Amino acid sequence: MIQFQCDYNQTCHPAILEALGRVGMEQMVGYGEDHYCQEARRLIRQLVGREDADVHFLVGGTQANMTVISSALRPYQGVIAADTGHINVHETGAIEHSGHKVIALPARDGKIDASQVKAAIDAHYAENGPEHTVQPGMVYISFPTEVGTIYSLAELEAIHDVCRSSHVPLFIDGARLGYGLCSPQCDVTLRDIARLADVFYIGGTKVGAMMGEAVVITADELKRDFRYHIKQNGGMLAKGWLLGVQFLTLFTDNLYMRIAQNAINQAMRLRDALKDAGYTMYAESPTNQQFVVITDEELQRLSRDFLLEPWGRVDSTHMAVRICTSWATTDADIDRLTAALCAR
Amino acid sequence: MIQFQCDYNQTCHPAILEALGRVGMEQMVGYGEDHYCQEARRLIRQLVGREDADVHFLVGGTQANMTVISSALRPYQGVIAADTGHINVHETGAIEHSGHKVIALPARDGKIDASQVKAAIDAHYAENGPEHTVQPGMVYISFPTEVGTIYSLAELEAIHDVCRSSHVPLFIDGARLGYGLCSPQCDVTLRDIARLADVFYIGGTKVGAMMGEAVVITADELKRDFRYHIKQNGGMLAKGWLLGVQFLTLFTDNLYMRIAQNAINQAMRLRDALKDAGYTMYAESPTNQQFVVITDEELQRLSRDFLLEPWGRVDSTHMAVRICTSWATTDADIDRLTAALCAR
Amino acid sequence: MIQFQCDYNQTCHPAILEALGRVGMEQMVGYGEDHYCQEARRLIRQLVGREDADVHFLVGGTQANMTVISSALRPYQGVIAADTGHINVHETGAIEHSGHKVIALPARDGKIDASQVKAAIDAHYAENGPEHTVQPGMVYISFPTEVGTIYSLAELEAIHDVCRSSHVPLFIDGARLGYGLCSPQCDVTLRDIARLADVFYIGGTKVGAMMGEAVVITADELKRDFRYHIKQNGGMLAKGWLLGVQFLTLFTDNLYMRIAQNAINQAMRLRDALKDAGYTMYAESPTNQQFVVITDEELQRLSRDFLLEPWGRVDSTHMAVRICTSWATTDADIDRLTAALCAR
Amino acid sequence: MIQFQCDYNQTCHPAILEALGRVGMEQMVGYGEDHYCQEARRLIRQLVGREDADVHFLVGGTQANMTVISSALRPYQGVIAADTGHINVHETGAIEHSGHKVIALPARDGKIDASQVKAAIDAHYAENGPEHTVQPGMVYISFPTEVGTIYSLAELEAIHDVCRSSHVPLFIDGARLGYGLCSPQCDVTLRDIARLADVFYIGGTKVGAMMGEAVVITADELKRDFRYHIKQNGGMLAKGWLLGVQFLTLFTDNLYMRIAQNAINQAMRLRDALKDAGYTMYAESPTNQQFVVITDEELQRLSRDFLLEPWGRVDSTHMAVRICTSWATTDADIDRLTAALCAR
Repeated sequence: MIQFQCDYNQTCHPAILEALGRVGMEQMVGYGEDHYCQEARRLIRQLVGREDADVHFLVGGTQANMTVISSALRPYQGVIAADTGHINVHETGAIEHSGHKVIALPARDGKIDASQVKAAIDAHYAENGPEHTVQPGMVYISFPTEVGTIYSLAELEAIHDVCRSSHVPLFIDGARLGYGLCSPQCDVTLRDIARLADVFYIGGTKVGAMMGEAVVITADELKRDFRYHIKQNGGMLAKGWLLGVQFLTLFTDNLYMRIAQNAINQAMRLRDALKDAGYTMYAESPTNQQFVVITDEELQRLSRDFLLEPWGRVDSTHMAVRICTSWATTDADIDRLTAALCAR
Repeated sequence: MIQFQCDYNQTCHPAILEALGRVGMEQMVGYGEDHYCQEARRLIRQLVGREDADVHFLVGGTQANMTVISSALRPYQGVIAADTGHINVHETGAIEHSGHKVIALPARDGKIDASQVKAAIDAHYAENGPEHTVQPGMVYISFPTEVGTIYSLAELEAIHDVCRSSHVPLFIDGARLGYGLCSPQCDVTLRDIARLADVFYIGGTKVGAMMGEAVVITADELKRDFRYHIKQNGGMLAKGWLLGVQFLTLFTDNLYMRIAQNAINQAMRLRDALKDAGYTMYAESPTNQQFVVITDEELQRLSRDFLLEPWGRVDSTHMAVRICTSWATTDADIDRLTAALCAR
Repeated sequence: MIQFQCDYNQTCHPAILEALGRVGMEQMVGYGEDHYCQEARRLIRQLVGREDADVHFLVGGTQANMTVISSALRPYQGVIAADTGHINVHETGAIEHSGHKVIALPARDGKIDASQVKAAIDAHYAENGPEHTVQPGMVYISFPTEVGTIYSLAELEAIHDVCRSSHVPLFIDGARLGYGLCSPQCDVTLRDIARLADVFYIGGTKVGAMMGEAVVITADELKRDFRYHIKQNGGMLAKGWLLGVQFLTLFTDNLYMRIAQNAINQAMRLRDALKDAGYTMYAESPTNQQFVVITDEELQRLSRDFLLEPWGRVDSTHMAVRICTSWATTDADIDRLTAALCAR
Repeated sequence: MIQFQCDYNQTCHPAILEALGRVGMEQMVGYGEDHYCQEARRLIRQLVGREDADVHFLVGGTQANMTVISSALRPYQGVIAADTGHINVHETGAIEHSGHKVIALPARDGKIDASQVKAAIDAHYAENGPEHTVQPGMVYISFPTEVGTIYSLAELEAIHDVCRSSHVPLFIDGARLGYGLCSPQCDVTLRDIARLADVFYIGGTKVGAMMGEAVVITADELKRDFRYHIKQNGGMLAKGWLLGVQFLTLFTDNLYMRIAQNAINQAMRLRDALKDAGYTMYAESPTNQQFVVITDEELQRLSRDFLLEPWGRVDSTHMAVRICTSWATTDADIDRLTAALCAR
C-alpha cells in the first residue's frame, strides 16, 4: 500500500533525525530560547531578507493560524478568507473558538482576489451602522491554496496594496510554502512573500520536518508580546530546540527547497501522465496536490494498493480524488501509481 | 418627518408606561424573581400551551440570541442559520465572540429549508474525519425572517423533524413574532411555535414594549442553569420586574396580538397601494417589513419627509428600500407615505 | 415588609417616569444616536469636566464591566482587582468568560492600595519568563466598594500614578458613584474621578434610574470602536433614548446628587442609631450600605417585617447583615427599622 | 555548566530516538489513528487497569490542561485548583482564555484537601443566588504538585469522594506523574490514579519523551467528541505517531518507571547530602524537585557552574532555589553539585 492521501504521512527527512540525534544529551534552556532556535531564526531572517522580522516556531498549522489571527484581531474583528480556506473548513472552528468570525469570500480555484477583498472591506464601512457588523481586521490567504493553486506575484501585490491602503494586515498561510515556491508556474520568491505579507509561516510539517511551522512577523504592530499569545494558546513547546534544530537543518544547504522540488517534480510527472492517459483533472494544480476525476470502480480498484483521498463526488459514477506527492515521494511510487491509473 | 426605517422607533404602547407607573414605589426583589415576572411567566406558559416551559426575560435580541445559542452548544459546535440571518450579519459577530461558528446556508427569501439543514448535518458526519470540522449543534431560524417572510407550518414541521431525528435543537428567533403570527399568510400558531421549537423567544422590543424578549425553553436539556448563562452574559436585569410588568401587560387581553395586527394591517394597505401604483416589490413580504424598489430621485425626494431604510442597490438608478410599520403606525402615517409615493 | 436588602428594589425616581412619559409617541432613531442621548452626553461631559470624553450608555453593571474590561485588554492580559471586587465574585465569571483572568489582590475594607498594585505589576515583569503568566492590563476598583467604603483622594491619586507610570489603565466601577460622592467622608469630586480614571461609569440603576450606567472614557486609546464592543456584547439597547432620557433627567438640576444624598443621610441616621444602641458594625461604611452584627434570633425576628441581606456568619450565634438605603428610603423606613433594631 | 533548573532540558531517552528512527520511511495515517498510537493506547489501558478508558496523546501540558478543562466545563463553570497550581500561575491564563475561572484555594505545600474542596462547593450552593457566582465544575490537582509534594492515597480518596458526591469530576495533572509514583513516600499506584480520577494525564515531556502527554479519560461523560476539542484547540498533531511511538517505548519493559526512579534516586541523594550539610530545605519534597535555601553569594558562586532556578526570596540575604533532577541526571551531576554546595 502506497499512501498518497496527504503530504504528512512520513516521519521526516533523514537529515532531521540525524540532527536531533547529534544534539544527544546536550542540556538546553526551554521554550525556544536555546542556541539552535536563535541560529535558525537568524538564518530565516537572512533568507527572507528581513533582518527586522520576528521568527517564532510553532508545532502545527491550526495552532499557528489561530495564534497569529487571534493575536492580530481586536474582539469585534474578523478575518477575510476564501470560503475554501483551511481556517474556514478544516480547523473545527478554531478561529471562531478564539472569538472571531471568518468572513468567507467565494473562492475561485481556491483563491480570492484583491477586488473581492477591497469590496468586502468597503462594504463594511459603507454600512449604515458598521458597528452592527464584523469589522474586517485581517486577510488570510494560503500559498499554495488548499486545492494546490498559487497566487501570481501580480495577484499577491494587488492584495497587498488593498491591505496596506486599508490598514488591514495580510497573513499568508504557508503550510506548503516550499511546494508553492518550487512550482514551475511560480513567479514569487520567499523574499516577495516576506515583503508582501505582514505575517506568514513557512511550513515544516508537510515539507520534511517531523513537525513545526516557522511564523515570520514583519509588521511591527503584530510583534508585540507574541510569546504570550503562543503560551496562552498552548503552543509553546517546552523543548523548543526540537523545532529550532529542524528548521536549522531544513534551511542549511537549501534542503527545504531541494526536497520541496522533488515533490513538485513527482507531481508534474504524475499530472503529465494522467493527462496523456486522457484523465480529466478536477483542478489545475501546479503544485504537489493533484486532483483527478476517476470512476468509482477505478477508485475501488486503486484502493487495494494505494491510499488516495476522496475529495468530492463529481457525478453518480465519478469521484474527484486528491493525490499528494511529498518530499519523500520516489520515482517508483509515481511509476506504480501511474501504471495502475493507466491500466484501465 | 415620519420614520419608517425600523419598528423600534417609539418608546412603548401607552398601556406599558401606565403599568410601570402603577408599580410606583412598590418594593421588589431583583433579577426577575418578583411576582410580576412570575405572573407573566405563568401567562406565557398558558398561552403557548407548555406548562413545563421555562420562561426568562431578557433585554434585547442580540443578547437573547447569544445567550440561548452559546448555552446550547458545546465548544466545537456551530449553529446552522440562513446567510441572511440576523446572527450572521447584524450582531457584530456576537455568536463567534462566544466561540461558535455560524454555519451559514444560502437563504431563499430569507429562509432555509429542511432539506438544506439535513444536507448540512449529513455532510458533517459524512466527512472523513468530522472532528476536523465544526459540528452542527443547533438550527436557528427567524420568524418572520429578516426580509419579512414567514415559514409555513409544513416548512416548520419539516425542519423540526430533521432537527428531532438529528438530535439538533431548533431555535426560533421571534424578535418580530407577533408580526409573523398576525400575517394573513400565516398558518402557524403560537402553540405550533412552542411545539416545534426547542427554544424560541417572543419579541417585545419591536412589538410594543420598551424593551424585552421572552425566551421560552421547552426542551428539558436546554433548561439547565440558564440563569447562570443570563448573568454571565450580562443580561440579567437588576430590576427584572421592568420586563415582567411589560410582558404581563402585553399578554393581558391579547394586547400583543392586537397591536401586532395593526402593523400588519398598515403594511398590507401600503403594499396594496404600492402594487396598485405599479411599484416593484423587492421581496414578497406578508408582514410588517415591506421592501420596494424606487429610483434614487424618489428616495431623495421622499427623504425630505420620511425616514426609510436603504436596503440595497438594484441598478444604477434604483434602490430597494425597507419600509417598516409597527404597533404604532397610524392610518394617517400610511396615507401620507402612500400619497407621497404615488405622486410621481 | 420594608426591603433593605439592596438599593435597586424600586422602579425609579418619579421624575424619570415622567420624563419617559413626556417622550410619548415621539419617533426616534435607535442605538443611542437620538437627541436625548446626545444631550445627556453633552451634560455629562460638562459635569465631569472632560469635553473630550466619550460617553456611552449601557443597561447594567455586569455588562458595563465586561464590555469595558474586555475592550481594553489584549488576550493575554488580566485585570487587577480586589478579591472582594464585584467582577471577582458576583458576575458569574463574566470577565473570565470574555477570556481574561481577574488578578485578585487581598482587599482591606474592600479596597486595594497603590503599593499592592505596583507590587503586582512589578512582580509580573520580574518573572523569569513573564510570558508564562498573565500580564496586568488594567486596574479595576469600585467607588464605593462592595462593602461601602470609599477611596480618599490621596489613595486614588496614588493608584492613578502607579497606573500611569506602568501604562496600565485605571477603571473605576461607579455603580454606586453618587452614594460615594455624597458621603460625608468623601474628599473626591466627580471631576477628580474623571481626571484620575481612564474609564469609569456613573451608575444609574442603583441611584434613581430604572436601569442604565453611563460609561465615560477619557483615555483616547480606550475610545476606539467602543460601539462595536457594546453591540458584540449584547449591550446596545435598540431604544437607546430610554437611557438618554434617564441620564438627562438625573443630571438636570443636580437630581442625581440630591437623591444620592438622601440615601447617605438615611444611612448615617441608621448607623448613628445602631452605634448608640451598642451594635457592632461589621464594617465601617460611610455610604449607603451598612453592615451590622446581629444575633440569629434578632435576624429571625426582624425578618418578619424587614428584608435584610445576610452577609456572612460572624460566630455561632451572630450574623453580619447588610442594610442598604437608597434614593427612595424615607425617614419613616429608617425610623421603623431603628425602632425594631433597638427594641432588643 | 550543568543544568538543574528544570526537568525538560534534554531531548529524550535514547530509546525514544531509536524507536523513531526505526519507523524510518514507513507511511502512516495521520492524527493519531496509526497503529503505534493504537498499540500505545492498548498498553496504557492495560497498565492503568481501565479497559474502558479513552486515551489521547497531546503535545504539551498547558495544551492538555486547557483542552481537558474546557471540554469538561459548561460556560459558567470554573475549575477548583490550588492557588499554586500550574493552571493558576504559569499558563498565561489559558484556562481563562477558554472562558473559565480558576477558583483558587489556598494551598498547603502545594496541595488542597477534601474539606477545602467540599467547603468551596458547598459555599457556592449556599449562596443566595448562586447563579451570580461561578459554579465549581471540576477539581484540578497536580501529582506531584508544583512544589514536589504528593498526595497520599487517603488524601486522594477523600478528594475523590467529595467530587463523586458533588458530581464534580476530578482531573489529575500528571506532568511529572512518574516522579510522583516512584517517590519513596508514595502509597499511590497508577491504578489508584486511574480509579480515583475522572481524567488524568501521564506526562512524557518531563519523563524521557521529546514531548507528549497521554490523557486518560475514565469517566464516560467526559469522553464525548474529545477529538473535536483537541483539534479545535490546535492540539491535534498531524504526525500523531510521533507521540504513539514515544509512549509505546516508554511503557514497554517499564522504561517510564525505571527512568523516573533514577530522577528520584538522584534527588534523594541530593536531599540527604544537603540536609547533612546543614542546609534548610524550603519545602519538604519527596520527588525530583528539591527546594533549598542558600545565600545570595552561594547562588552567585554556584551559577558559574550550575543552572539553578531561583524560586523566591526568603530574606534579604537568602534565596530559595529549585533544583530538578530528571530521568537523565547522572551520579556525576549530583556529585559535582553536592560538592559545590558543601564547599562553603
